[in-house]
Amino acid sequence: MSEATQVVMSLIEAFNANDLDAITDHFTDTSVYHNIPMEAVTGAAAIREALNGFLGMSTAIDWVLVHIAEGEDGAVLTERVDRFEINGKWLELPVMGTFEVSGGKIQAWRDYFDLNQFQSQLA
Amino acid sequence: MSEATQVVMSLIEAFNANDLDAITDHFTDTSVYHNIPMEAVTGAAAIREALNGFLGMSTAIDWVLVHIAEGEDGAVLTERVDRFEINGKWLELPVMGTFEVSGGKIQAWRDYFDLNQFQSQLA
Repeated sequence: MSEATQVVMSLIEAFNANDLDAITDHFTDTSVYHNIPMEAVTGAAAIREALNGFLGMSTAIDWVLVHIAEGEDGAVLTERVDRFEINGKWLELPVMGTFEVSGGKIQAWRDYFDLNQFQSQLA
Repeated sequence: MSEATQVVMSLIEAFNANDLDAITDHFTDTSVYHNIPMEAVTGAAAIREALNGFLGMSTAIDWVLVHIAEGEDGAVLTERVDRFEINGKWLELPVMGTFEVSGGKIQAWRDYFDLNQFQSQLA
């Protein structure tokens, strides 16, 4: 497994442990996180803040990796089912995400999903 | 380039030529196309029908490949900007898609995007 893929697997483990410190440690001050239907967020501190409210609501997290593939250009592409336990109920979100890794850190992360599919489960 | 990746590149070329016959030729009677926010469609004939109305509206198609990667399990993952010229205006949809290829044909195709992001441009 290449270093880039290892970094992405490590990020997924940190989510599954619902460990915000460990998650934040995968980013730098110039990292960009774009949850595609929303505005992009830049920098580890802002990424932490963007994730904080949502992870705080979750009593458990279980991201199921369907496929992972690393391109010849080094980008790591994932297909996942992101599961979150909120108020005693599991939400399931089918999602794909691209990760661009450099120097052992995630420099860019873009996740693609249908926002309404997610919000309708939250309601 | 592996055969699976070649098949996916060939499908993208067929879309960019807006050639419905060539597109349909990439699927079999058991292929499943799931445009994630919508219902899944099974079989080349049904996939053709699902695509037909939309491609017919498009006077030009330009899918820009951002990243492509093939996993060790043979799945081909793509990040794209799918552009469609409709009524003299270009719509742009950021999307990711997974392709499972077998015997030179696409057996499964799942595309992930925000449906509202697309529909708001169509309006």
